[in-house]
This record gives sequence, structure tokens and C-alpha cells, in this order.
Amino acid sequence: MARRGRTSGRGVRRSQRISSEVQQLPWQTVRTPFAPICPLSEDQLEQIHLASLTILQEQGVVFLLDDARKLLAEAGQSVCEQRKLVQFDPEFIVSAVAKAPSSFQLHARNPKHNLLVGDNAMNFCSVGSAPNCSDLDHGRRTGNRADYQNLLRLGQSLNIMHMYTGYPVEPVDLPAETRHLDCIYDFITLSDKVYTIYSLGRQRNLDALEMTRIARGISQEQFEQEPSVCTVINANSPLTMDEPMLRGIIEMSSHNQVVILTPFTLAGAMAPVTLAGALAQQNAEALAGIAFTQTVRAGSPVVYGGFTSNVDMKSGAPAFGTPEYMLAAQVGGQLARRYGLPYRSSNVNAANSVDAQAAYESVFALWGAINGHCNMLMHGLGWLEGGLCASYEKMILDADLLQMIATYLQGLEVNEDTLALDAIREVGSGGHFFGTAHTQARYESAFYAPLLSDWRNFESWQEAGSPKAHEKANLLAKQILKDYCEPPLNPGIKEELLAYIARRKQNTDA
Amino acid sequence: MARRGRTSGRGVRRSQRISSEVQQLPWQTVRTPFAPICPLSEDQLEQIHLASLTILQEQGVVFLLDDARKLLAEAGQSVCEQRKLVQFDPEFIVSAVAKAPSSFQLHARNPKHNLLVGDNAMNFCSVGSAPNCSDLDHGRRTGNRADYQNLLRLGQSLNIMHMYTGYPVEPVDLPAETRHLDCIYDFITLSDKVYTIYSLGRQRNLDALEMTRIARGISQEQFEQEPSVCTVINANSPLTMDEPMLRGIIEMSSHNQVVILTPFTLAGAMAPVTLAGALAQQNAEALAGIAFTQTVRAGSPVVYGGFTSNVDMKSGAPAFGTPEYMLAAQVGGQLARRYGLPYRSSNVNAANSVDAQAAYESVFALWGAINGHCNMLMHGLGWLEGGLCASYEKMILDADLLQMIATYLQGLEVNEDTLALDAIREVGSGGHFFGTAHTQARYESAFYAPLLSDWRNFESWQEAGSPKAHEKANLLAKQILKDYCEPPLNPGIKEELLAYIARRKQNTDA
Repeated sequence: MARRGRTSGRGVRRSQRISSEVQQLPWQTVRTPFAPICPLSEDQLEQIHLASLTILQEQGVVFLLDDARKLLAEAGQSVCEQRKLVQFDPEFIVSAVAKAPSSFQLHARNPKHNLLVGDNAMNFCSVGSAPNCSDLDHGRRTGNRADYQNLLRLGQSLNIMHMYTGYPVEPVDLPAETRHLDCIYDFITLSDKVYTIYSLGRQRNLDALEMTRIARGISQEQFEQEPSVCTVINANSPLTMDEPMLRGIIEMSSHNQVVILTPFTLAGAMAPVTLAGALAQQNAEALAGIAFTQTVRAGSPVVYGGFTSNVDMKSGAPAFGTPEYMLAAQVGGQLARRYGLPYRSSNVNAANSVDAQAAYESVFALWGAINGHCNMLMHGLGWLEGGLCASYEKMILDADLLQMIATYLQGLEVNEDTLALDAIREVGSGGHFFGTAHTQARYESAFYAPLLSDWRNFESWQEAGSPKAHEKANLLAKQILKDYCEPPLNPGIKEELLAYIARRKQNTDA
Repeated sequence: MARRGRTSGRGVRRSQRISSEVQQLPWQTVRTPFAPICPLSEDQLEQIHLASLTILQEQGVVFLLDDARKLLAEAGQSVCEQRKLVQFDPEFIVSAVAKAPSSFQLHARNPKHNLLVGDNAMNFCSVGSAPNCSDLDHGRRTGNRADYQNLLRLGQSLNIMHMYTGYPVEPVDLPAETRHLDCIYDFITLSDKVYTIYSLGRQRNLDALEMTRIARGISQEQFEQEPSVCTVINANSPLTMDEPMLRGIIEMSSHNQVVILTPFTLAGAMAPVTLAGALAQQNAEALAGIAFTQTVRAGSPVVYGGFTSNVDMKSGAPAFGTPEYMLAAQVGGQLARRYGLPYRSSNVNAANSVDAQAAYESVFALWGAINGHCNMLMHGLGWLEGGLCASYEKMILDADLLQMIATYLQGLEVNEDTLALDAIREVGSGGHFFGTAHTQARYESAFYAPLLSDWRNFESWQEAGSPKAHEKANLLAKQILKDYCEPPLNPGIKEELLAYIARRKQNTDA
């Protein structure tokens, strides 16, 4: 295992021991210094924007929650109660969306893990909401709490993972009514990073908010000033927002917590088969939801989510990391920037094992997301099978991919020292640089040291048993779990959380 | 196997039958519509440029060939015969490099396979010069003519491959003295695409030029007006140009044929450990070689090659597809554009099997090359093990990757038809787009149909035996070879070639 650090052009980022066996990059804010790739011209972008406003005005969006329609009617929007339909005034949409912050601080219970969401910062998140999980040792299985906890531990240990966006795997062995209490308890106790909760009814949202406040040990007043927890709100594409999602917006936004508003627009299924149409629909749904967050509470933090991809037209199966996905991810970034909103994209693939397909679809998705300037990369670590499986090995592989991207995004430094004219003079024609003072001074930390890549020659590699990348990832995941240490938590807070859970479970049982 | 085509936003690119089993994209000129990523500011770029000129002026480059030094001395450069060293006047370098064309047409024996080199066109090339080859059926073996021919056939059949840059694998079972005659004969008879020959002595260059002229059935005069064959000239880094390489430039450039000038600057080994220094040295070596091509013949076609990567500082093994590689590939593009030259980059990796590592290192390398705006992507299809092995399966996997990139680079079209407001109206809230006329009219060709990606759900995939991407690639390679047809060649030309080879072999034997 590589044990070297790295001195970057933009500041020192020495590698740190991840476990007794593994070195990784330190916790860091990843920022992109590069211009985004913009597949659309300004004119084309405007066409998408205007098409979205037309959809919202002429056709409208079904808002299934009565309270939500009431709020929008009060805000002057045209509501048809019979069809539960809201038709939006374009000026209302534009002015409501403009109230959302372009960036905000997201507070973890450990302040060292606070996050900037927006600007040129990129936050890498764990896989969320997979119903299954797998590793090479035990194969594929239905989600359960033991695996849920292990995946949380992996996420806590991997510095390149900034936050959790959903349960990495769904622990279906926990009773559905109280699952959120145990899961949030695990989030808080096994990790000190930011997490994301589900909007599945008002009380669950309130539980999540209260437990997060307790975990941070702060007052309600401070909590409402400091975004500390996220929820993902999916539009029920096409053009529907369901009750739990709208209730989630009301509870989260009214408490100034983070809504990640993401339409689920698969071109050819829930959206038009043409990318421009799918993106116009994505944008309409996103704008409707975002405008609603600002109607609930102006200035509340919200993230523009893009998840447009295509389906396999033979089977209807969703496809990810495709050329269409890359384009949609980058246009999504253009749209978010047009509205001055933080942007969410994803690291996705549709492979069934951690093979070449998983890797190339993932890196293509990352190419789309990173060049699209996403501020929040959901499913950044561990996603397999189009989201149906959280993979231990994929989580390690993704950590390596994301560390590489973080290193790439540091760029390179050009100055007298790095131009190395003295070293070039010293070596002369036909010499070798290894022995120079210039090389020796930088030897340890010159280059990114990968977690997985095997650079031995074929013969040495073969002698070692021809290990594949996913096999090395498997060993690494086990080593990290073996060396995992729970982050410190004030015993009083732990007690308070347990008391809260006990009280709430009693009420649920009653 | 997918059998669908694709209608692009920028023109119809229907898929074509690759073989009885496989559909692929048609032959096409790939162009990037997107802005390049520029890791360096204009100021930083200028610093690299000036550092290179300083290296060339103060330190100079060893030119081992007497004739080359003579030409440069005549051109006014400072030559030390004892040290075989040429020190360059910066103004000479700048004005000589400015004489090279910014783009040119490259002529294949089949005019349909002519290539534009430069502007925003991207040409994808086969792996070149691997000493070994491998497939899943027969494992890894030393290069031989049968595999050489099969890899040529694969390249001819894959439309996304534009040209060969070197022998895909070295056929070491052919006698070294006459190998080039047989290999060029195979290039000409098994394919009708552009190829690349080696500069390993004057007579071999002359043989390649003459055989290429015969293959195209044109006069010497026309041949000298139409670049039709390439050679790769590697600087012997640091700062040395050896005799065969310089002889190759003299023979190729004087006949107006293409020189791909590529320093071999691995940071920490043959170049400084700092990227800026390695790039300054790469640039110095490239400029010296390119200036020499223009000294031999002003206006002769030349490509600026970037191959800077890092080594594993533990073992000295070259690393590819790393963050450092991506940055170097993109800065290389900035430098080539600064001089108005076509740019060569590569699709490289250091994996020993077609696993996740091979895929992610490759896609990272492509990310560097494509966003760096390379005009010629060497080793685009089939490269494994840092170039020590040509892989049948990797060749198919790369064809899929490059087809995806070609599709991505088509961008998306925004107009009334693609915005699909009528379809969105028709489907309404909560409906499905599959049955709409809008979808049905585009169903067959809406999305890229991959060669390898398996999008079945886990259960179906498992029932099918859990096939991995590289296993599917293996089957596909065999199918393509089974269905391969030799491209037509005028029998008179074939006869003339055989007569030329017979004559030359007799002379060599003598």
C-alpha cells in the first residue's frame, strides 16, 4: 500500500494514515479552479429556461398536499383544487428562486466537518437509499442495520467523503415506524459528518430536526440560523409533487434546513425522449419546488438537483454514465448557475459488479458532474446497479477516483522552483532526474499515491496472484473497518438522544 | 447486442452493422464543440514557453545525427561538434515553428478515410508498438504477425478508429531487417486507413514512403503534396535526439509527410519531478524537433506531441491516467494551441488486466486528452500495461469509450421539436412518455447504444452467468474477426507492392 503524501501547488495536503495499512488524503474542501464545460449557448440556455416557465404557467404542477397549495394560492398562484394543480406566474417563479442563497454553510456536529455548499466548492457524498448491499466476501444481500452501520463507518473513515446523502443502504430489519430514530442515532454516533434524512411524514422530519439539534448541542434559535441537515426532495416526474415530499419541504425549509430538490427525469420514461425536453421538464419541476421552498421561508437553503439520464429503450432500464448523462449533468450545471443556486449531480453507473463498466460509467458521470461544476456530488461513493446496491468495494474505488479528482483540481504551480531549470541544467542531455536534489527534496510527496492502482509490471503482478482492482478494494474496506474508531461524542448528548428515542418509540408503540 | 442507431443533434449518425452481431457508429469526423480546459493562466503558459526557450538557448539539445547539425548550423544555430550540441536562438525557434501548418489533410488509400488533423477535429488511433498482446482465450504472448494482422483487422472494422499509429503489436517472428516491408504490406492490404511507420534508418523510411505512394496509386509529385503517412519521433529525453529519429524527420519532412514529435518526459525520471518543469522540458524538446522539421522543409506537416506523466516513485514504473497525467495532457493542449499546431495526446493506463483500473485510468486519460483538445489520440484503442501489451478486449472496450465520447461531443440540439412541449402537454402530470408519438418517432435512435455496457437488472444478469465487461469484449472481438472482410485493393497495385517487396528483400539478403 502506498504511503506517500503530496505537496500540492495550492497548499500542502499531506496524506494521512487512514488505518494501520492505508494512507489517504486529509479532509479538505475541494474547489474547482477550472471553467465549467457549457454544452449550451446562452441563447439555448434561455430557450430551456423559457420552455420551463411555459410548462409551469400553461400546464402547471400537481401539488398533492393541501397545505402546499394553500401557501401557493396565498402567494398569488393559480390553484385548481379539483385537479390539485398549481399554475405558476413566471415572474413569481423568477423572483422566488432569486431569494434562495447562492451558497451556505452546512454545519456538522464536528465543526471541522462543516461544509461550504456553493461557489466553486464540491462536496462528495456517500451512496444513498440502496435497498441492497454487497461485498466480495458475502455477496449481495438485502439491506440491514449491520451493513448500514459498516457503510457509515467506512464513510466516516474516508476523508474524501464529505457527507451522507441518505442511508447508504436501507436497514429493512429495523421496524419501518421507528427506523429513522435508530438510523439517525447511528449517523450521529458512528460519524460526525453531515447527513441527510428522509421526508416520510411530518413527525419523522421533526424527529430528525430535533435529534440533529441535540447532537450539535445548540439552541433551537441557533439551529434555525445554521443549516445542519439535508433532505432530498424528488419531484414525482412528470410534474407532480407528492404529499411527503411537500411536507418535507415545509418542515425543512421552515426550520432553515437544506432541501436538495431533484426531479427524476429519465428521458424516454418520465420525461421526453429528447434531452432538451427532458431538461426543460427537469428545470420546470426544480423551479416549482425551489420556488415553493422560498414561499415557505425566503432565504432558506436549497440545492438545484439534476438527475436527467436516459433509459435503455429496449428494456426501460435506466442507464447512467452515458453520453446523454454527461451532457445533461453539464447543462444542469448551466441552469443552476443561471439561477445562482448550488448544484447537485451524481456519480452513477448501471453495472452489476465492480468491473470495467462500473469504472467507466462512473468516471464518465464524474466527468459530467465535475465539468458541470456540481457543488454536491450525491452517490459519490459506493453506488452500483443504478442505485439498487451499495457496494463496499465500489466505495473504496470511488474514494480513489474522488481523491484523484481532488488532486487534479489542485492544478499545478508554475514558479522558478517548479520550472526546475537548475535541475534540468544539472542533469543535462541523456541523464536521469532521480538522483537530483530537486527530486530528492520532493520524492515523498510529489505525486498522488493511489489506494488501488497496481503499477507493478505484469510479471510481478502475476506472481502476486493477478489481483484485480475490486479485490484490492475488498481488502482495504476490511482493513478500514478493522481500524475504525468511533468519533467522540459528549456523553450528555448521547444520553439526551437515547432518552428522546425511548420517548418517541413509546409514543409510536402506543 | 444492441442494434439501435442514433440521430444526433448535429446530423444523422445512424449506427451501422459492424458484423453479423454488432452495430456500431458510422465512420465520422469527430469534432469537439466545447471549450478546452486550461489549467494554466496565460501568464503561466508564457512562463513555460520562456523557460523552454531558455533551456534551448542556454543548454541546448544534443542532435546525434551529423546531417541534422549541419542543417541547423546552416540555419544559423550555434553548434558544438564535439558535444554534438545545438543551442537555439529563441527567435529562430519561434519563427521556424510558425511555419508549420495549423491543420492539414491526411490521405488514406481509401479517400473516404482521409483525415483532418487540426482545428477541432479529433482522430482516434490504435495502440502502437506493444511488444506483447493478449486475449482471454490465449493469454499473454510475445507479438507475432498473426496477432499483428488480427489487430489490424479489428482496427479496420471499428469505424471509430481513424488511423494506426505504429504496429498495434510488434511481430517479432518477422526478420527485423525486412519486417517493415511485410508490416506495411499488411497495413495496405488488410486496411484502407492511414498508418504510421517507424523511423529506423533511411532505407526503411524510403521503403515506407514508396510503398505508401504505390498503395495510393499516385505520382511522386502528388504524393509530396499530400501527407499520406506518419511517423512518431520521440525525443530521447532529456534533451537528446538520436540518429534514427533525426534521419526520420529528414526523410519524412522532406517528402512532406507527417512527423508526430513526442518527447518522452516522465516526471521524476527523464524530466523534473515537478510538472511545470517536466512540461517546460517537454516543450523545449518538442520545439527543437518541430523547428528542425521546418528547417528540413518549411510548411511540412508536424504534430505537437505531449506524453508527460509521472512515475511511481517507489519503483520507477511509469503511471498513466493519473491526476498529474490529466493536468499535463491539458497543459500540452494549451502549448500546442499557443504555437498553432495540431496536438497529440494518448489513451493510456498502467493496468495489467481489463479491470476497473484499466477503465478508470483510461477514462481519466481521455478526460485529459479530450478536454485538452487533442487532434490525434494515440493508443486510443487497445493499450494495456503502460504500453507493454496490446489487448483484444481493451480494443473493444476502448471502441465503446470512444464512441461514447464521439456521441457526447455532438452535444444536444435545442429547438421546438426537441423541447417537446407538446409531448409534455400530452403526457400531463404523472403519466409516461413511452407511448407518445414524440417518443415513438425517435425510439430507435434516441440514445447511444453501447457495445459492452450491460444494463440488465442484477437477477437477469446473474442468470446469464454474471458476465463482466471484458468477457463481453472478448466475444465481440471474435465476432468482428469472424466477419471481417478485406477492403478492396486494385490488383495492379497489389502486384506492384509485391514486386517492390521482392526486390527489396533480395537487396537486403544480398
